[in-house]
Formats: sequence, structure tokens, C-alpha cells
Amino acid sequence: MNWTIRTEGFDRDQIPAMENRFFCGNGYLGIRGAPEEFGKEEMPAVNLAGIFDKTGEGWREPLNAPNGLYTFLRVDGEEYGLPEQEPLQHELELDYRHGILYRKTSWKTRRGIVTVRSERFAGRKDVHLIAMRYAVSADFHGEIELCEGIDGDVWDIHGPHYDQICSESISMEKEELQNRPDGWRWEKDCLRLEGITHEKKDAAAVAECICRDFPCDVKVMRKEKQILRCFSFVSEIGREYSLEKGIAVYTSRDVETMPEDPALWGKSSRRAEKISELLRSKEVQTLLQFMKNGYEEEKKLQIQAWEEKWSMSQVEIEGDDSAMEALNYSIYHLMSIAPAPGSNLSIPARGLSGQTYKGAVFWDTEMFMLDFFLFTDPDVARSLVKYRVDTLAGAQKKAADYGYEGAFYAWESQERGFDACTDYNVTDVFTGRPMRTYFKDKQYHISAAAAYGILRYLAVTGDESLLAQGGLETVVECARFYYSLLVKRAVSEAYEIHDVIGPDEYHERVNNNAYTNRMAKFVLEAAAGLLDEFVRKGEIHLKMKEAPAKESSAKEPPAQEQTAEPPVQEPEWRNDPKQAERQAEQFREAAEKLYIPEPDAAGIIPQFDGYEKLEDASLEQVRSRLLNPREYWGGAYGVASETKVIKQADVVTMLNLFSGEYSDEIKKKNWEYYEPRTEHGSSLSSCMYAMLACKCGMAEKACPFFEKSARADLDGGGKEWAGLVYIGGTHPAAAGGAYMTAVEGFGGVSIQNGKLQVNSCLPEKWKRLKFCVCCRGIGYRVEIKRENDEIKTEIQKI
Amino acid sequence: MNWTIRTEGFDRDQIPAMENRFFCGNGYLGIRGAPEEFGKEEMPAVNLAGIFDKTGEGWREPLNAPNGLYTFLRVDGEEYGLPEQEPLQHELELDYRHGILYRKTSWKTRRGIVTVRSERFAGRKDVHLIAMRYAVSADFHGEIELCEGIDGDVWDIHGPHYDQICSESISMEKEELQNRPDGWRWEKDCLRLEGITHEKKDAAAVAECICRDFPCDVKVMRKEKQILRCFSFVSEIGREYSLEKGIAVYTSRDVETMPEDPALWGKSSRRAEKISELLRSKEVQTLLQFMKNGYEEEKKLQIQAWEEKWSMSQVEIEGDDSAMEALNYSIYHLMSIAPAPGSNLSIPARGLSGQTYKGAVFWDTEMFMLDFFLFTDPDVARSLVKYRVDTLAGAQKKAADYGYEGAFYAWESQERGFDACTDYNVTDVFTGRPMRTYFKDKQYHISAAAAYGILRYLAVTGDESLLAQGGLETVVECARFYYSLLVKRAVSEAYEIHDVIGPDEYHERVNNNAYTNRMAKFVLEAAAGLLDEFVRKGEIHLKMKEAPAKESSAKEPPAQEQTAEPPVQEPEWRNDPKQAERQAEQFREAAEKLYIPEPDAAGIIPQFDGYEKLEDASLEQVRSRLLNPREYWGGAYGVASETKVIKQADVVTMLNLFSGEYSDEIKKKNWEYYEPRTEHGSSLSSCMYAMLACKCGMAEKACPFFEKSARADLDGGGKEWAGLVYIGGTHPAAAGGAYMTAVEGFGGVSIQNGKLQVNSCLPEKWKRLKFCVCCRGIGYRVEIKRENDEIKTEIQKI
Repeated sequence: MNWTIRTEGFDRDQIPAMENRFFCGNGYLGIRGAPEEFGKEEMPAVNLAGIFDKTGEGWREPLNAPNGLYTFLRVDGEEYGLPEQEPLQHELELDYRHGILYRKTSWKTRRGIVTVRSERFAGRKDVHLIAMRYAVSADFHGEIELCEGIDGDVWDIHGPHYDQICSESISMEKEELQNRPDGWRWEKDCLRLEGITHEKKDAAAVAECICRDFPCDVKVMRKEKQILRCFSFVSEIGREYSLEKGIAVYTSRDVETMPEDPALWGKSSRRAEKISELLRSKEVQTLLQFMKNGYEEEKKLQIQAWEEKWSMSQVEIEGDDSAMEALNYSIYHLMSIAPAPGSNLSIPARGLSGQTYKGAVFWDTEMFMLDFFLFTDPDVARSLVKYRVDTLAGAQKKAADYGYEGAFYAWESQERGFDACTDYNVTDVFTGRPMRTYFKDKQYHISAAAAYGILRYLAVTGDESLLAQGGLETVVECARFYYSLLVKRAVSEAYEIHDVIGPDEYHERVNNNAYTNRMAKFVLEAAAGLLDEFVRKGEIHLKMKEAPAKESSAKEPPAQEQTAEPPVQEPEWRNDPKQAERQAEQFREAAEKLYIPEPDAAGIIPQFDGYEKLEDASLEQVRSRLLNPREYWGGAYGVASETKVIKQADVVTMLNLFSGEYSDEIKKKNWEYYEPRTEHGSSLSSCMYAMLACKCGMAEKACPFFEKSARADLDGGGKEWAGLVYIGGTHPAAAGGAYMTAVEGFGGVSIQNGKLQVNSCLPEKWKRLKFCVCCRGIGYRVEIKRENDEIKTEIQKI
Repeated sequence: MNWTIRTEGFDRDQIPAMENRFFCGNGYLGIRGAPEEFGKEEMPAVNLAGIFDKTGEGWREPLNAPNGLYTFLRVDGEEYGLPEQEPLQHELELDYRHGILYRKTSWKTRRGIVTVRSERFAGRKDVHLIAMRYAVSADFHGEIELCEGIDGDVWDIHGPHYDQICSESISMEKEELQNRPDGWRWEKDCLRLEGITHEKKDAAAVAECICRDFPCDVKVMRKEKQILRCFSFVSEIGREYSLEKGIAVYTSRDVETMPEDPALWGKSSRRAEKISELLRSKEVQTLLQFMKNGYEEEKKLQIQAWEEKWSMSQVEIEGDDSAMEALNYSIYHLMSIAPAPGSNLSIPARGLSGQTYKGAVFWDTEMFMLDFFLFTDPDVARSLVKYRVDTLAGAQKKAADYGYEGAFYAWESQERGFDACTDYNVTDVFTGRPMRTYFKDKQYHISAAAAYGILRYLAVTGDESLLAQGGLETVVECARFYYSLLVKRAVSEAYEIHDVIGPDEYHERVNNNAYTNRMAKFVLEAAAGLLDEFVRKGEIHLKMKEAPAKESSAKEPPAQEQTAEPPVQEPEWRNDPKQAERQAEQFREAAEKLYIPEPDAAGIIPQFDGYEKLEDASLEQVRSRLLNPREYWGGAYGVASETKVIKQADVVTMLNLFSGEYSDEIKKKNWEYYEPRTEHGSSLSSCMYAMLACKCGMAEKACPFFEKSARADLDGGGKEWAGLVYIGGTHPAAAGGAYMTAVEGFGGVSIQNGKLQVNSCLPEKWKRLKFCVCCRGIGYRVEIKRENDEIKTEIQKI
């Protein structure tokens, strides 16, 4: 198979799409696939994981680091670069096997043709490193100026986030680095630029070192938000003039000197100086290592590191190259944004492709991405689910703020579980007014996703240590949250959950959403089971004491909105087995009595109370009622709101998760019923239809939905703009959904009582499907072959 | 005091307002104060009580009868009439002591001045009679043509409602009527016009007889929807040429020949003929009586009948003539729309002033108008509350349709309790789309109003016979409805009511609206009490059997929407005292545990859960945010929805009804808090503020609110148009509220355990307040005097 994607030519309208498609990342940072000369208008970004800022009334969003890749070219004093100068030729090529982006662009100058070639990657070994090669050649003699440096004037959606920017040169006089055996020369000074944010005075600092294979004049320049170094020379015909550049990226999240007393987090210049000093020393470490290795050696290490990853994660599909390539490209994206184990990070809904969706973690991570990591890299999976444990206090505070008990997780989770979701998430296109939405207040299923992640992690890895480190408490707190949501009508014995938004966001404030209720039941049952087991083992007291509840807070100062520490109450059951038993009993009783919508006479499970009474308009009818192409379909008066048309898989998602509880007939009927009524207005939708189709033996029907998921970022075409706000980016949940469909849907992998089961359902075209999965600490190589119309499955321990 | 209101001059823009202000009515029909020559464009109407039709997709609305008042004038072949011909002079005068409207209009013709004088009234003795006098004089010799007859081309909001119109002449050869002693001559023929509706083929028929004091040529003409008779003569200078006209109005509701089998209610011409025949004979009876009496005698009888009414209802206020006149004018309106006892009718929200608000009965009747009738005319009061008993089956069906138990009364009740309220009651001014509103589904307090009416009737009249005739069952069914609404959170012992709209309609779908919860508690307690008492008396079995549940259905065919009779289940408690006890116990327990929002630390009762968290914007701020003066303030995204600004009294209404349970301090604090946050966007609002001000000793503060209520129809100025739909009309709830404020607020009348109590609170200006009230079958004359800064109260039995 071909592990590269390529594009030729340059289309101004495709700039954001290309930047997403040719993305590189390493979990610490993500680099949009932008040409080096792009300024903020063209939306380049080195997006940083887990560090946020809010300016004025704008949304709180993650930082884009000062852009250390910034490089541009002058010929005879005239600048040549995209998008201003129409190129003669422009090519991008991403080696997504190894996360390396290659670029080649030529322009016609008055004297002749000048060509730029570059390559770059986000370091896998040292995630603070970005390595880059940049070369220019000309078919004429001319005055060439190669300018490079750090651009602090970064692209922001709701910025600018740096209200202070400082730049400097750092002398790096180290004898052994002065003379490279290949004759390249290191510049003696590194350039450095640091941005300080408004909100918490966080610092994002970038330093760079550079090496060249040609003699030239060198000039360092500082502009207001940039520090630049220009290399001037007269070109020889045909000779390539090359730079190698190491870029070190650190933020104040990476240094642990924050004083305990928040009063000292203010504008103290001493604190800022201290942080700068620490950051500088770390940057120098990273750069020295790069200087020691040089670009080519770093690239070898990069390739090695990726090859290691692929050994577990690659999926082979014989008979369908296009599917195989799309799927592995999806997997590349997942691996590019996976946080380092132990980093206290999870994955935002748009990965690290920019500031879209506020860099926040949604239910996408647990419900769509987690399985990939569980099966291929359980340490990353642990980090993802640990994120919810670490943000429990934030979830408890949110629950208390809304008058509930337990843990109500952030719909859009930033650091410490701060909910970045606003009460007004959509703008009314007719009035320009913000519309009150209820994503934050009523999408209760988010807490189930948090608990589900932990329980899924336990089921696949068998690693119970997480329970002792706060996992048990997290699940119990989620169960307490659901318990506190339950209502019972005076005239009924059943528990119900009212006034909720399910996965289908077009229908707000409904009662008894099937998905939400079933997930609540799952959490209540699981919490009861865990409590029972720990009471049995007599371990409660001990285990709970281990919970390192403060681990993360040391590193992360609270957001402005969150200065007061939420009052985490010691749960009653913690030190008292009797209380724990009672708590378990309460959960079990609630789970038993919780009403779960059942299939009606036609076998259809109503998505919520009264769904069946809504207008049964077709998708086309509903679309035809739009008065403005950008108007919101949901909300109180949206075109879909009073119809059966839904945004995304909802009942179908529930059937996927609890497929063992429903007959194939019911699953099929609901699939057939809901699919034509689904807009698939979310990239989370298609994979759920693909998965469920596999689970009831409809592999061929699954194929187009699988492809849509797998190609989400390859083909693009999703919504990029909401009014004037950019909402594009990559779609890791679709990528994760594609992986799940391949391995768990077509591949039929499941974990039953800790044992790997394979019950495949291949489409006709697929002759062989091969992949590895981890289960309970053991790796397995799974091969499913079609031989003479018979399916054979081989499972080997690695 | 002056018992007349007058207007001089003619202003085209004031046409609808004048027609409301100069309204006449008798409970069977209402006549808008329109000049006789007005055609449907000018919105004249003889509005009929309790008979409805729906055409196409239009709202279901009450019928306007064919207009028997229709009369116009030609001079030398040219028509003189309003609004086309600018008058030289135009005067209207309403004697609201006796319900007689006088009109005088002059036009300048080419030959000289022609003047019309007319008077008319809606018969109080025979409600089917409209009597009218019409005279013309000229200061020149000219060819005058006086045309009069019946105009079937009536004004409709969502019409036309008659798809068949037939007219005829009926010969009335009766010797004794031919020659009147005063020389007037009766026309031998009566004109008659009958309209047949679409929906149920109801008939509305009008016949008229006419008498004149001058010789002339007579010509009868039929147009498509009119039957006319023209009197031509040459005028003598200064002589007045007069007509007297009797108009008989009947509908198929007045004849009892409807076959039992609905299959026969279709287009059967035989049925229609049969009905016509019966109607014709009734009309002739009415006309013969009028012919026997003549106009002047009828007018005497009219004056007598009104004087009798005023003997109980007049309120005298010494020291404030303006208040006294406005109040008695309000009382005039209430008396003009009071249904005849035993008529199975209640009072629509806009009285009989037209088709606005679908001619439907709202909570206005019980909560704002009932007290006036209880205190002055208990037989009418009985009719009003009996209406809810008679429409119980409709309320039970509505409850069942929504998945509740018991009786959920129609928000906009038409015959048999059919709910005319639609799911889309407001049009979005920005998109032109209908907006989903929840008035019908979630304004649960309507059933409390129905039960409250019955209980209030019992409390004031002591007439327990109503209980035996379905009253008890109605209250119990309302209680069962509330019981079925109750929910209990798993983490609480309290019952709550969620997802509701209280009186303040700007805040939709809230939890625990204080008014709704308190009213529910009241109904639950009252039902328990009634059940207890009847168990104690051992009367259940007997009493229930008497309930004449079918009384009304014989007369009223079901609406199209309602062809199936709702399945009225025999309540379990009906024949089993044990069941009744259990039911009472259940209600009592629910009432005890029902959560009633309590005053917060500042003494403010939150209108609903979370009200305190809403934006505390001022009324002016909220108004300034309107982008379109006609946009709806409420709904999901209205300018008021996320603020504390409310449409009308809500907590204040609750405090009024349960004022004994709250200290004066709490009442005052809530009054002061909510008043500036109230838009008073409903005519139901001011009187509640006026009443509560009186109840906590703030008589002066009450005054402007009292005046606003009392002058609602005198001054006009309320909203008249919503987009293209006329929503104007009279405001009987404001009238009723004004009465309540005068008698129960300033006057301080209350009924405590069946005893009349007076605890007055007069404003400075009022020197004496005098009125009569009925209590427990006894009339009392109450006089409250201010003498040397002391208030003296005298109560005398009549």
C-alpha cells in the first residue's frame, strides 16, 4: 500500500482543508500543514495541547505556539511565497507512515525559476522538538535572501492570546557543535520568543537553532511580534542552499515552579522571569540534543519511533486498497494526537488541528477514540481515562452548581474539568442574537462517557490499579450524578430522566432519551458492582487513600472562572463498608427501576418520549424548509425540531453499545428506520451506523458508512465555517469510529469476560483483514481470511 | 354619576376601538358598536356565544350572525355612509346603565344636510331580540332611499364560515298588527337569512320585521349574501322618517332535534330543512312579540331589566367619580356578556366582542370574572362553573391524550371542552414561521382554575347541589390530574411539578412555578376534603348517580377533531367508600409533600426554580433589545426569556389567593420586587397588583393599577393587531379584576367559613364606598364611610 498522500497545484480556497489534511502532530503539539511563509491570515498553527486562554468576551481556547517554522524567501529584494505569488508548481506530500511532510514549490522570477523544498516533522522521541529542513535553489544567479525565525503574531480564533511577547538571542558557544563533519555550520545564537497570555499569564516559548551548508551574510532582526534571521547570498545556478532547523517548544505547563498561593499567580514579574529561566533551560536541552544529532539522525529516530507504533496499530485489508489507505490514514491521525502517557491530557474533539471547538475534550474521546488506544497502546488509553479521574473535582463542582450530586462532567472539558461550553452556542442567523442552547446543561450523557471510559479500560486491560487511583470514586460519583437526576412520577414506580438532550442535539429538552437512560443504567449497575467487589475485598479504605487527587492541580492553575476549589466531600461510603453496601443497593434498585424505552409494535425504539408523534418529514423536505443555508436545524424552532429528522445516530448508538441485549431483527429494524431520518450532521454518526450494520450481519450496508468515517479527513468536505467562525479541523472521532468499525465491526473483535473473541463479518470485497490487538496485557495478531467462501480466523499471541 | 359615554367626530383608525367601546350585549349575543351601514371591512359583528366553526386551516372561532342591523341611506341615488363619506357630524352615545346605543350622523349632500339618528339594544328579556330604531331627516326636498335588511357577508377572522346562505321573505299577515294606534305601518313580510357553516352544518338564522311612520315605495332585493328592502320617498324639509326594526337571532344550538347518530349530522338536506323550520318558527315568535310591543315598549322593558340588575351590581364611590364611572362601565360589560343561567355557556376571554381568542373560555373566567357574579348574580356564577362540569369529558380526554390522569382542561375551551389552542400560537416575525408554543400542553394551572371556580362557588353560595351534579367528580378529576403530574426526585421526598408554564407566559418550560404548585396543592387538599365529607355522609353512591353527564352533549355535536367520545372511566372511588378514603389519603399525602417555593433570605418567592439566576435586566433594557416591535417577548429566544422580566402577575397572583398564609411584609416585598419586573403585557396583570396592594395596606399604590384595570375598555390602547390578525376586543377579565379590587381589595370583603367579613382599605380620596353582595343566598348592602379619619362599616341584609 501507498503510505503517502499528495497534492499538486495551489488553490487558495483549499488552504484550510489542506492544512488539516497534511497535519503532523505528536500529542504535545499539532502542526497544520501550512507552507512555512504563511502568516496568521492563512491559518497556520502549532497548536498546543491542554493550555488555554480567554481574551475579553471571546471563547476560551487553546494556545497556538509562536510559529518557529516561519521562513520566507526573497529574490532581488522581492518576496516569493504563498498565497500572494502564484506558484509555477506546488506539491505537498505527507508520509503518514512516519509523520513527515514534504513540500516543493517553484515560482517564476524575472530572472528565472526559484524552487523551495522543505520537510518537517513533530518529534515523537522528544515531543518538544519540531525538526525541519528548508532548501532553496535557482536556475539563475541572483541575490537570494532566506529569512527564518519565530512569528509570534499567530492565528487565533478568539485572540490575540499573548499580551506580552519577548524575544532574545541565546548564545550557544559549544566547541563540539561548531564544526560538523559534513561541513555544515551552526549559528552560534539561538533565537527565542516567548508569549505571555492574558488570563493566567501562562507562557508559551519557542527557541530555534539553525545550521546551514552555505556561506552567507547573516542578519538578526526583531519586529514587534517576530524575531527573524536573514541569510543573504548570490545563488549559483542549480545549487541547493539548505538549512536545518531545530525548534523547541515549551510552555509553563512544563515547569513546576508555580507557587502554591494563587495570590502570587498575578502579574508578578519575578514569577514570569523564573518561568522564562526554566523554560529557556529546557529549550536549550532540546536544541542541544538536536544539534548533536542533526536533522538526518533525528529523522531516522522519528521513522523508528513511528515504525514501532505501526507494528501494533497497522491494519491490513486485502482486496480494498482504498479502504486500507483511508483507515491507516485515520490511524495516523489518532497516533499524531495521542497524549504522552502520564501527561494528564486527553484528546480534544478536533485533535490538535487548531482552536476549533475550544480545544476541549468531548464525549468523542471515550466513545469513539478510546478503543483504538485500548487495543494498540493501552498506556495512552490509561492517560485518556485518567484525565476524567483527574478532573473529577471540576465535574463535582459542575454537578453542585446545577443542584445535582456526584459528578457532572464538562460538556467541553478544558483543564481541571472546566466546562468551556457556553449557554449560547449558536447564533441565530435571522436576528444575529446568540441562541440559548442546552448542550452544557442537559447533555447528561457526558458523565456516562467518563465512567464508560474507565470501565471499558478495566474490561480490556484488566488493570485495576486505576480504580485505586480514583477510578472507583469517579465511577461512583458518576452513578451518584445519575441517581440525583432520577425522577419518579407519583403514578408510576419507574425512574425516569427528564429534560435532556441525547446525542441527537436537534431535539432539545426531551424526556427519557433511550441512549441517556440506558447509559445511566449501565453506570448505576457498574458502580454497584464495583462497590460490591471492593467491599468484598475489604479494600475500600486502603484504596481510596491512595487516590492522588492533587496530582494534576499542582501543574495547572485554575481558570479565572474556577478560582475557588470545589468542595470535594468525602463520600460516606469511603471508609464504611456498610455505607458502601447501602450505596450499592441504592444504585442497583435505581438501575432496576430505570425506564428504558422499549421497541414498539413495529420494533422501533422511540428515541425519547413522544418521538413517534413528531412529523415524519423526509430529510429533503426538512432541508427544503431552510430559509438560510447557515441556520441551525435544532433549537426550539429549527427546521428539524418538530420532525423525526435527527442529527446523528442516537438509538443506533445505544444499540451498538448494548447490542447483546437486542435481537438482530430489532437492530435491523431500527437501523432501517432511523438511517433515512438521520442527517449525519456530525462526524460521529456514520461509524455508528457502520458498526451496527456489522453487528447484525449487514456488512455491505456498513461499507459506505465506514468509508465516510475513514475518509472524513482525507476527503474533507465537512462544515468549515459557522458564520465568521472557523469550525473546521480534523475529525479524530470519525477516525476512531473507522478503526472500531474495521476491528470490532468487520473484524468482530470483542472482549468477553476478559477474553478476546472474534466474530467477523467481512464485506464481499475484503479477502483478508489483519491487525493486532492488546487484551489484558497480551498482544494478539488477528488474521481473518476469506477462502472459498469460508471465513477463517487465526489468532496468535505476539 | 354620568351613566353614558360619548364620542364625537369620526376617526377611521379608531373604528375597531370604538366598536369595542360602544358594545352592547346580552350574553347570548354581542353587538359591536358599529354604524348600521358598515360592511365586513369595517368589522361590525353580531357575535354569537358558544357556536363555532373551522374553515380550512384557519383557527376555529365563534360565528358572527348575519347582520340584521344592516341599513344604509341613499340621497338622489348616491350612498351616504361611513367610513366612505366624511360626515359633517358624528356622535355615538352609550347609555351603559341600560345597554342602549344612540347614534347621530350628518352628511352634507349637494342639496343640503341629511341626518341619521339611530338607537338599538340587545334584548335582555328575550336574548334573541335585537331592537332598533333608525330615522333620517333632511333640510331639503330630495329622493331619499332607506335600505335595510340582513347582510350575510359578515366579518370573519378565519372565515368565511357560511358556505351556504339562503334568504327568504315570510308573510306575517296578522290583522291586529297591521294598524298600530300611532299610525305606524308594519311591513307584511319579514326578511330572513340563514347561514350554514362548513364544519358541522350549524345554522345561524336572522329574521327581521319592520315598521315605519311614513308612506313610501318598497322594494325587496336579494343579492348573493344579502336580503334587502328599500324604502323610497321624497323628503320634506325637517321631517324625520323613522323605522322600527325587530331582529330575531337563533342558531341550531337553540333547537333540539339533532339526531343521536352522528352519521346523520352530515350534509342531510332533510336535517337542514328541519332545523330551518324550527328556527323559523322561533324567530316568528320573537318577532310577533316585538310587533305586539313595539320598540318603545321593548325599550321600557329593557330599562326595567337592567335596573333590576343594577340594584345588586352597582358600586358607588363617593369622592372619585372617574373611578366610579369606569368601574360601573366595567360592570356593564360583565353583565352584557353573562350567559343566561342554565345555558351551558361560560364567558370567552374577549367576551362577545368578536372572534378574537377564538371565542374560547380561558382561566380568566374563574380567576377574574367569577367573583363579580358570585356576589351579584349567583345563578350566572353557577352557569359559569357548571360549564367546567359539563366539559369534564373533554378535559379527561385531553389528559389521556397527554398521558396524564384525571382532567386537564382546555387552555382555550370551546364547546364540550374542545381545546382550540394550537401548538403554534405565535408567528416568528423574522422568519414568518409558526413558533411552537406550549400554552396548550404545559399551562397546567387551567385545571386548578376549573376546580377553584367550583370551590369558590361552594364557599360563597353554600350551594352543595353542584357537587351532586358532577362538581365533586370534577374537583376530584382535577386533583387526579395534578397527582399524575407530580414527580419526586430520587434524592428528595418532595413532590415537584416540572416543565410547566405559569401565568407569566414569557418563561416557558420551567420547574416548580410557585403559582402552579400552590394551586395544585389547593386542589389536592380540597378534593381530599370533599371526598372525606362525602364518605362521612355516606352519600357518594347516591350523589354520583345524579350527575347529568350527558346534559350538554345532546345539544352540542362534537367538533371534527373530537368525533370519538372520550372514554370516561368510572372512577374507582365512586361506589366504594374505602376507595374514596384511599383516594383522599393519597391526595392529602401529595398535598403535604408538594414543594411550594418559599421566600428567600430577602423575602422574595422565586417564581420558579432558577428564576433568581436570570439576568436582572430592566423592562426598558429588555424593550430596547427588540429588533421588531411586533416580535414575541417570550418563547425560547425572546428578549424576556432569559431575564427576570415577566409578562404578568404570577407570584403576586399566588399571594393574592393565599394571602392569609403570608405576612404583610412578605407580600409587600414581593409586590415591590416583582412590579418593576412586570411588563403588564396582559390585561390580567394590573388588577392582581391592585388587589395585593390592598391586602397589605397599600391602598394608594393600588389606585393606578385599579384604574388601569377599570379603564381597560374605556381607554382602549391594548394590543389590537398581531401581524395581520386582529386580537383586539373587550377585556372582561380586567373588568372583573376591577370589580374584585373595588369590593374585595378596597372594600375588603371576604367570605370566611360562610360568613361575610369586611376589612376595608380605602384610598384617601374615597369618602364612601357602597355596594351589595350575596353570600349564602342572602343579599347584603355594604357601606364603608370615612368619617373624621375613621372608617365606619355598615352591613345590612337586604
